[in-house]
Amino acid sequence: MSILIKGGTVLSSTGSVTADVVVDGERITAVVAPDSWPGNADTVIDATGKYVLPGGIDGHTHMEMPFGGTFSADTFETGTTAAAWGGTTTIVDFAVQAKGSSLLSTLDKWHEKADGNCAIDYGFHMIVSDVNDGTLKEMDACVDAGVNTFKMFMAYPGVFYSTDGEILLAMQRARANGGTIMMHAENGIAIDQLVAQALAAGRTDPVQHGLTRPPELEGEATHRAIQLAKVTGAPLYIVHLSAAQALEAVAEARNTGQNVFAETCPQYLFLSIEDLAKPDFEGAKFVASPPLREKSHQGALWQGLRTNDLSVVSTDHCPFCFVEQKELGRGDFSKIPNGMPGVEHRMDLIYQGVVGGELTLQRWVEVTSTTPARMFGLYPRKGVIAPGSDADIVVYDPSARQTLSASTHHMAVDYSAYEGLEITGRVDTVLSRGRVVVDGDGWHGAKGHGRFLSRELNQYLN
Amino acid sequence: MSILIKGGTVLSSTGSVTADVVVDGERITAVVAPDSWPGNADTVIDATGKYVLPGGIDGHTHMEMPFGGTFSADTFETGTTAAAWGGTTTIVDFAVQAKGSSLLSTLDKWHEKADGNCAIDYGFHMIVSDVNDGTLKEMDACVDAGVNTFKMFMAYPGVFYSTDGEILLAMQRARANGGTIMMHAENGIAIDQLVAQALAAGRTDPVQHGLTRPPELEGEATHRAIQLAKVTGAPLYIVHLSAAQALEAVAEARNTGQNVFAETCPQYLFLSIEDLAKPDFEGAKFVASPPLREKSHQGALWQGLRTNDLSVVSTDHCPFCFVEQKELGRGDFSKIPNGMPGVEHRMDLIYQGVVGGELTLQRWVEVTSTTPARMFGLYPRKGVIAPGSDADIVVYDPSARQTLSASTHHMAVDYSAYEGLEITGRVDTVLSRGRVVVDGDGWHGAKGHGRFLSRELNQYLN
Amino acid sequence: MSILIKGGTVLSSTGSVTADVVVDGERITAVVAPDSWPGNADTVIDATGKYVLPGGIDGHTHMEMPFGGTFSADTFETGTTAAAWGGTTTIVDFAVQAKGSSLLSTLDKWHEKADGNCAIDYGFHMIVSDVNDGTLKEMDACVDAGVNTFKMFMAYPGVFYSTDGEILLAMQRARANGGTIMMHAENGIAIDQLVAQALAAGRTDPVQHGLTRPPELEGEATHRAIQLAKVTGAPLYIVHLSAAQALEAVAEARNTGQNVFAETCPQYLFLSIEDLAKPDFEGAKFVASPPLREKSHQGALWQGLRTNDLSVVSTDHCPFCFVEQKELGRGDFSKIPNGMPGVEHRMDLIYQGVVGGELTLQRWVEVTSTTPARMFGLYPRKGVIAPGSDADIVVYDPSARQTLSASTHHMAVDYSAYEGLEITGRVDTVLSRGRVVVDGDGWHGAKGHGRFLSRELNQYLN
Amino acid sequence: MSILIKGGTVLSSTGSVTADVVVDGERITAVVAPDSWPGNADTVIDATGKYVLPGGIDGHTHMEMPFGGTFSADTFETGTTAAAWGGTTTIVDFAVQAKGSSLLSTLDKWHEKADGNCAIDYGFHMIVSDVNDGTLKEMDACVDAGVNTFKMFMAYPGVFYSTDGEILLAMQRARANGGTIMMHAENGIAIDQLVAQALAAGRTDPVQHGLTRPPELEGEATHRAIQLAKVTGAPLYIVHLSAAQALEAVAEARNTGQNVFAETCPQYLFLSIEDLAKPDFEGAKFVASPPLREKSHQGALWQGLRTNDLSVVSTDHCPFCFVEQKELGRGDFSKIPNGMPGVEHRMDLIYQGVVGGELTLQRWVEVTSTTPARMFGLYPRKGVIAPGSDADIVVYDPSARQTLSASTHHMAVDYSAYEGLEITGRVDTVLSRGRVVVDGDGWHGAKGHGRFLSRELNQYLN
Repeated sequence: MSILIKGGTVLSSTGSVTADVVVDGERITAVVAPDSWPGNADTVIDATGKYVLPGGIDGHTHMEMPFGGTFSADTFETGTTAAAWGGTTTIVDFAVQAKGSSLLSTLDKWHEKADGNCAIDYGFHMIVSDVNDGTLKEMDACVDAGVNTFKMFMAYPGVFYSTDGEILLAMQRARANGGTIMMHAENGIAIDQLVAQALAAGRTDPVQHGLTRPPELEGEATHRAIQLAKVTGAPLYIVHLSAAQALEAVAEARNTGQNVFAETCPQYLFLSIEDLAKPDFEGAKFVASPPLREKSHQGALWQGLRTNDLSVVSTDHCPFCFVEQKELGRGDFSKIPNGMPGVEHRMDLIYQGVVGGELTLQRWVEVTSTTPARMFGLYPRKGVIAPGSDADIVVYDPSARQTLSASTHHMAVDYSAYEGLEITGRVDTVLSRGRVVVDGDGWHGAKGHGRFLSRELNQYLN
Repeated sequence: MSILIKGGTVLSSTGSVTADVVVDGERITAVVAPDSWPGNADTVIDATGKYVLPGGIDGHTHMEMPFGGTFSADTFETGTTAAAWGGTTTIVDFAVQAKGSSLLSTLDKWHEKADGNCAIDYGFHMIVSDVNDGTLKEMDACVDAGVNTFKMFMAYPGVFYSTDGEILLAMQRARANGGTIMMHAENGIAIDQLVAQALAAGRTDPVQHGLTRPPELEGEATHRAIQLAKVTGAPLYIVHLSAAQALEAVAEARNTGQNVFAETCPQYLFLSIEDLAKPDFEGAKFVASPPLREKSHQGALWQGLRTNDLSVVSTDHCPFCFVEQKELGRGDFSKIPNGMPGVEHRMDLIYQGVVGGELTLQRWVEVTSTTPARMFGLYPRKGVIAPGSDADIVVYDPSARQTLSASTHHMAVDYSAYEGLEITGRVDTVLSRGRVVVDGDGWHGAKGHGRFLSRELNQYLN
Repeated sequence: MSILIKGGTVLSSTGSVTADVVVDGERITAVVAPDSWPGNADTVIDATGKYVLPGGIDGHTHMEMPFGGTFSADTFETGTTAAAWGGTTTIVDFAVQAKGSSLLSTLDKWHEKADGNCAIDYGFHMIVSDVNDGTLKEMDACVDAGVNTFKMFMAYPGVFYSTDGEILLAMQRARANGGTIMMHAENGIAIDQLVAQALAAGRTDPVQHGLTRPPELEGEATHRAIQLAKVTGAPLYIVHLSAAQALEAVAEARNTGQNVFAETCPQYLFLSIEDLAKPDFEGAKFVASPPLREKSHQGALWQGLRTNDLSVVSTDHCPFCFVEQKELGRGDFSKIPNGMPGVEHRMDLIYQGVVGGELTLQRWVEVTSTTPARMFGLYPRKGVIAPGSDADIVVYDPSARQTLSASTHHMAVDYSAYEGLEITGRVDTVLSRGRVVVDGDGWHGAKGHGRFLSRELNQYLN
Repeated sequence: MSILIKGGTVLSSTGSVTADVVVDGERITAVVAPDSWPGNADTVIDATGKYVLPGGIDGHTHMEMPFGGTFSADTFETGTTAAAWGGTTTIVDFAVQAKGSSLLSTLDKWHEKADGNCAIDYGFHMIVSDVNDGTLKEMDACVDAGVNTFKMFMAYPGVFYSTDGEILLAMQRARANGGTIMMHAENGIAIDQLVAQALAAGRTDPVQHGLTRPPELEGEATHRAIQLAKVTGAPLYIVHLSAAQALEAVAEARNTGQNVFAETCPQYLFLSIEDLAKPDFEGAKFVASPPLREKSHQGALWQGLRTNDLSVVSTDHCPFCFVEQKELGRGDFSKIPNGMPGVEHRMDLIYQGVVGGELTLQRWVEVTSTTPARMFGLYPRKGVIAPGSDADIVVYDPSARQTLSASTHHMAVDYSAYEGLEITGRVDTVLSRGRVVVDGDGWHGAKGHGRFLSRELNQYLN
C-alpha cells in the first residue's frame, strides 16, 4: 500500500522545500522533487497549499494516571485518539512507580494498560518514587527496555517527592547508564508550609494554588537540580518549566555547556494566574503544577523558545473532569486534582506563535517534533520527513480557522482550558505509520494501531 | 545526466539516515530509502561506509584581495579549486569598496574578477569602507542584487575603519532593507596606539601583532557593535570571533533574543599565540586579525560552538605567501600582510572536533554547511541534501588518514599553517551542482563552472 | 577662637553617636562624650535635636565655565556661597583645557579665577581635551600640584571628545602616576548622527535632547571605558551616571574587583525625561548630558546607591539662565547650553532618600561627604568629624520643612529645577574651617575664605 | 580611673587619624588632636608608631560546645582569654538548642555557662534546631532578650538540620520580629550520600571530608537559602562561606539589593584541601565544615572581601584537641569532630592581608570590628573608637614579628592550624571596657570581667 503526498511544502526544523513524499507501508520511501517520482502510488493525497510536516511528538502525557483514588480522565485509547486528531502521532507517557513496587513491574503494568489500546505510537518515561538499591539497579534494566528517562519530583512530599540525596543517587546511575533525569522542579517542602498556612487562614480558593507556589521556588528547585546534575555529571531535563526564574537557571547552565534541557507547555504560554482566579470555582480547571503564572512570564517563555533555552513544547496532558474530579477540591484547593487537558491542541496552539510572529515555521516543527524526537531517542524514526522514517505525517492547512471547545474536542474531559478560543490553522490529514488516521473530519484510526517505542538515548548530550 | 549515490549515511544538521541520493542534472531529485529508487541512473557512486553530506559553505573568504600593493595569493580559480578539494562547494567572498568608489561599481569589479573563473558557486558580501548618502542608498541596490550582507570594520583606521556614527547609519539602513551587518570587531583606534608604542620601543617581531591586540579590545568592540545594533534594530553577525571576552558579549546578547550571530575560524580553534611567537620570523605565517590568542580561549570557542553562541565556522581565508609577501613585515610586524590560508581544510579540521568529542556529527554539518546556508540566504538551495536542492554533495571517508602540508595542498600559497598535522577523515568525492569535481585524487572540475549566487535574506531573524 | 557644638547627634558613614565637638581655630580639636570637655570654649552652639555631620563635598561642579561664547552662570563666589548655604563646604571644580593650550597654564588660569573668590574650600579636576606628548607629561605635574583626577569625554566630538586611542594614552599615564581618569561616558560619535537626523527631520524641541541620546549609548561608552581601564590598569571614575545600562556595566566591573567607581546626581534620582518634554521650551531648563531618563531608571540608581555600585552623589552643577542662555537653543535643541543648577540642594535632596526609606542616615553622609573625601584624596582632612580634621561642619535640622524655589535659592540662575518642591530637613548652621558661615538665615561667610586643596590620591584603590 | 592613649594612629573603617584617646572608666570619653587633651589621666599609654584600633569582634565562636559526647576544648574562660590575647574584645557565641528543648531554656543554660567566666564581653546567637509553634514564638522573646540572630543548618541531617519548610517558617518569623537568619549553607542531604559512599568504598581518610562536600553543594545551598529569604523577606547572613560558587550566589543577591550578607573565616583564606590531605591523620586537624577548598578559592574570597560581598571575617572557632578528640575519627573521617581553633589569631591573620596588599588598613578594621558591630547590633558601643563607646581598644604594633604555634598560643587545644607560620604584626596592648587586659606579654584580665551584650538589630538592613 503506497501513498504519494503531492504538491505540499515539506517542513523541517531547518526550513521548507517543495517536494512530494512517497510512503510505502509504514515507512517513508522517498522525498522527491515535485512530480519526479517515477514509481506508482496506490493513493495520492493532494497537499497543494498545505504544509507537510513530521507528526508531532508529545513528550509529556499522563493517560489514566492514578491520582488520589481517581484517574486522569483520558485512557490510552481516548488520549492517543485525541492526540492524533491534533496532529500528534507519538506520545511519551509516564509509568508511575508506586512506593514499594519495583520499576520493572511498574513498566509491565503500564505496558498492559497501553498495549492494544493506543491509536498512535507511544513510549514511556519512568517515574521513580522510591530510590533504593533495588530500584537503582532496575534503572539499568529500564534503559535496556527502551525506557531511559527517569522522572523525579522535588515537589509532592509524601507522594512522589525524592530527597536531594535520592536524586543524587539516581543521577549517578543515569550518568553511568546513559539515561536522562527529568525533573519536576518545585521546592515542595517549602510550598507545603505555604499551603498549610493558606488553608489555616481560610484561604481555600483555587487561586491559592498559584499564590502558595511562588515562582522563586520553581527557580530555586531548578537551580538545585542543575547543581546536583553538575556534581554527578547526569543529563537533566526540566519538565513543564513555567517561571522566568527557572528559565534563567536553565539558561545559565546551558551557557556553560552543561547537559541541561527544558520544556514548557502551551498553558504557560497562553494562560495565566488570572485564569486560576476565575470565580465560582472555575479556576479549578486551571490547577496544575507548577501553577499558571503572572502574564509577564509568558514573554520570557516565548523568548526562551527562540533562544533554545526551552527546547521542547510538551503538554503535561493530565485531564480531570470538572464535575466530580476537580470538584474534589471545593473548599480546599490542595485537594483539587493537579492537571489540565492539552494533548489535542499543542500543534495548533504553538502554530499561533508562528501566526503571531513569536516563532518561525521551522522552529514550530523543531520544538513540537524534531527536538523531542532527538531528545527522547526516536530520531530519525520520528521527527523528520525522511526516507526510512516512520510515515508519521501531518498535512496542515495554515489558513483554516477553528474554535477550540469542549463540545468539539476529542479528549475525554468535560471542559476545555481554551473554550471559545478562535485560532488560525488546522490539521487536515494525519498519517500514523503509513495509515491515514485523520482525513478532514473523518477518523480512520483504531486503538491497537499504536506500538510501543523502545527508545535510544538522548541525542543532544555533549 | 543522472547520478545515484548509494549506500551512504546521509548527514544533516539534525542527524543521519541511511539513504540513497538521486541527482538529475544540477539538482537533487530524490532522497530515497536504500535500493528503493525505481528509476535509472547514468552513474552510480558507491558511498558504502561513508558519509554523504551537503557541500561545505565557507562564508568568509578573500580571493585575490588587494592589500597594500599586493594581493592575497589565491585567485578565484585557485581558491575555489582548493575549496572544492576540501569539500567546500560554496564560498561567499568579500567585494571590497575602495574609499571613494561606489558599491555598485565595486560589485561590478568583483563580478568581473570572479565571473568565468570559479570552480564552485559563489556569492558576495560587500565591504563598506565609505559611508555616505550615496553608498547608503546603494546598499538597497546591493540587497536587490543578491548581496545583502555588509561588512564593516572597527579596526584598521585609515583603511577600512568606520566610525561608530557611520556604523549607526549603515545599521539603520540594514534594518530597513533587511540586510545584516557583519563586523570586524576590534578597537582599532586603541590598538593602533599599542602598535605604535611597540614599534617605538623596538618590539618588532610577529608576536607583537598578538600582544598589541589584547582580547579585551575585541570584547569591547563586540559589545559596542551589539549596542549599536540594539539601538538601530539591525541584525549583526560578528566575523572571525577569537576571544572569550567577545564570545561572552555575543552570548549575553543572544540570551536576550537579539539578532546577533557569530562565526569563528579553524585557526582560533587549533592555533595559538605560541605559533605567532615562533622564531626566525616564522610567526609571520600566523599573522591575521584578530590575532591568535592564548590557548585558554580555544576551550571557550569549542564550547561556544556547542552552545550555538558561535553558529558558523568560516575560514577568513586570505593567504599571503611567506616569501615576498609575509616578508614585507620583517623588522616591522605591522607591515606583515594580515591573513592566513585555510579554505581547503575547514571541513577536515572541524571534523577533528567530532573525532575528539568536541562536536557531534550533526553539529559538524550544521556549523560548516546548514547554518551558513540559512544565515546567508542560500537554504534550501544549499546546505542540505534534499530534493530540489543543488547537488552540492560531499562523500566523506570518516576513517581515512591524511597529513596536511603545503607540498600537497591546492591553495596557491607557499606554506601551510598546519604543516605536518596528521588527521583523521578525508574528502572522497565532491559534486558541485551535479558535476563530480573531485573523485579520489582526480580533479574533474573546471573554472567557470561556478556561478554567482544571488542570495536571499538571513533566515534566522527573530 | 574655640567653638563647642553641644548636644547633637554626630553622624558618620558608619553610624551616629551623641557627642560634643570641639573646634579650635580651623580644626576640630576633639570629639567628646556629652558634657565631658574639660576645657573652655568661646562660643557654644546648641545642636540638641539636630544632626552634626561633616560638611558636604561636591565633587563635580562647573563654576563660570566657558561654553560656546557664554559662561555658566555661577561665579566661584556665587557658586561656593550657594554651596555653603546648602551644607556643602568643599567643591571640586573642573579646570578646562582649551584645545591647544597646556594643562599647567590651564591650571594657572583656574587658580586665578578661584583664588580670593571662594567662600569654601575647593580643589580642581583637570579636563584633558588635548592628548599629546606634552600634555601627557604635564599630567604628572598636575598630580604633584594636587590635581590628580583627569576628566575625559567620549561625547562632544570636536569639543572635548577624546578618541579611544587618546584615552588609552592618558590612562596609561594615570596608571603610572597614580591619577584617576574621570569619564563622561556617552558615545558622542553615534549620538551626533542621531542629533543630526532629528534636526534634519525638524524635530527641534528640548525633549529631542533626550531622545537622541539613548541609554544604551551611555551603557556602551561606560563599558568601553571600563575595558580600556582594564587594559591599561588605570583607575576609572564614571561621572554623572544616569542610565541603568551604565550602572550594570559598572556593577559587573566592580564585582571583579576592578578599580571602577561611579557617581550619580540628584537630577537623575528626582527628575525624568518628562521634565525635558515640558512645553513652551520649559524643557530646556532640564537639558544636561547625559539627559534625564525614563523614570524607571530612578529605582535602579537608588538601588545602586545602596549596593555601592554608585559611591558618590555629586551635582554636575553647571547653571545657565533660562533667559538668554537656555534660549540660545530655541528652534535647535542642540544649541541649548548643557547643564543644570544644583550645588545648593544636594544635601537636602539626598536627605529625602533617608526620609523616604531609600538610604540610611549613614549612607547619606557617606555618599555626600565621606566617600568623596576618600575618593578625591581629602580624607581625613575633610569628610569626617574627627580630631585634626578641618572644622567643616553642618548642623542639620532633620524635621524642618522648606520649599525649593528660584526666588529663595542663592545660585545665580533664574530658575530652579525643583521649583515648588516641598521637602523635609534643612541646614541650620554651617562651619567652614572653623568659621560659622551660615547661621539660620544669616550669612557670615566671605569670598576669599575658601582655600585651594591640594589633593592626595584616591584612597579606594585596590 | 582614666587612661590617655597618646601618639598613636587611630584607625577606623574609613581611614586613620593621628589622635589621642581618652578613656574614663569603661568608656571612651574623647578622641582629641595630639596633645590637646586639657584634662588629666591616671595612666598614659604610649602608642607612638602603633595603630590604635577598636577591639576585634568575632561573630562566630563555639566555646565548650557539646558535640557527640564531647565538648569543644575551649571554655568560655579559656576561649575569651585567648581572644583577648589576639586583640578580640567581643565574641558572639552560639547557644545551641537541643532537639526538644526550648529556646529560652537554652539561652538560660548558655547564660549560666558564660556568666562570670568570660574575660571579655560576649553576646549570643541562637541555634534553632527544632522549629515548631513554640520555638517560633520564643524567637520573639529571644529578640527582646538581645539575641536576634538565629542560626539554622542545611547540613547535618538528624542533628541540627532544618528542612526548607522549617527554614521558611523561621524566616517568616525573623521578617516579622526584625531578626536575621544565619545559615550554614551546605546541602547536607546530598552530602550524606557521598559520605556514605566513601565510607562504603573504604575511603576513610580525613581528606574524604573535603572530597565528599563539593563546593557546588555549598553554592547550591547558599542559593537556596537566598531564595527562601527572598520569598519571606527575611535578612540572611551566610556563615563561614568557603567556596567561590557560594560567593557568586551572594554577590548576585547583593547586586539586587537583597538583605544578604556573608562572612568568611581565616582558614578559608590561608589553608586548603592540601592541609586536609596531610598524611598520618594530620589532616584531621583541619576538618571543619564547610571543608577547606582547593587553593583557587582563596583568591575569590580575598576579592570578595574587597568587593564587600564578604562583609565580615569571623573564626568559627570550635577547637577539638587532636589527641582523644580528633582521634575519634581515625578510620572513619565522618566521626572526626568538626571544627578548628582560631579565635586568637584572626586579627593577626587578616592583617597579613594588609601586609600582602590584599586589603587596605581600613578594610582590616572594617571586616574584623566595625562591620560585625553594625551587623550584630553593637555599634557604636563596639566597633569604633568614639566618645561614648566602650573602651575596647587594641594597640597594635604593625612591624613586630611573631611565629604562631601551639606552644605559645593561649587556646586550650593541643595543636595550631598555623604551626610555625611567621607573620608580621602583633598585639601590644588590649583594653576591654577600659581595663588593660593585655600589656605586652602580661595578662591583666580576669574571668568574669566580660559581660553579656544585649544586642540591637542588624544595622545594614535596606
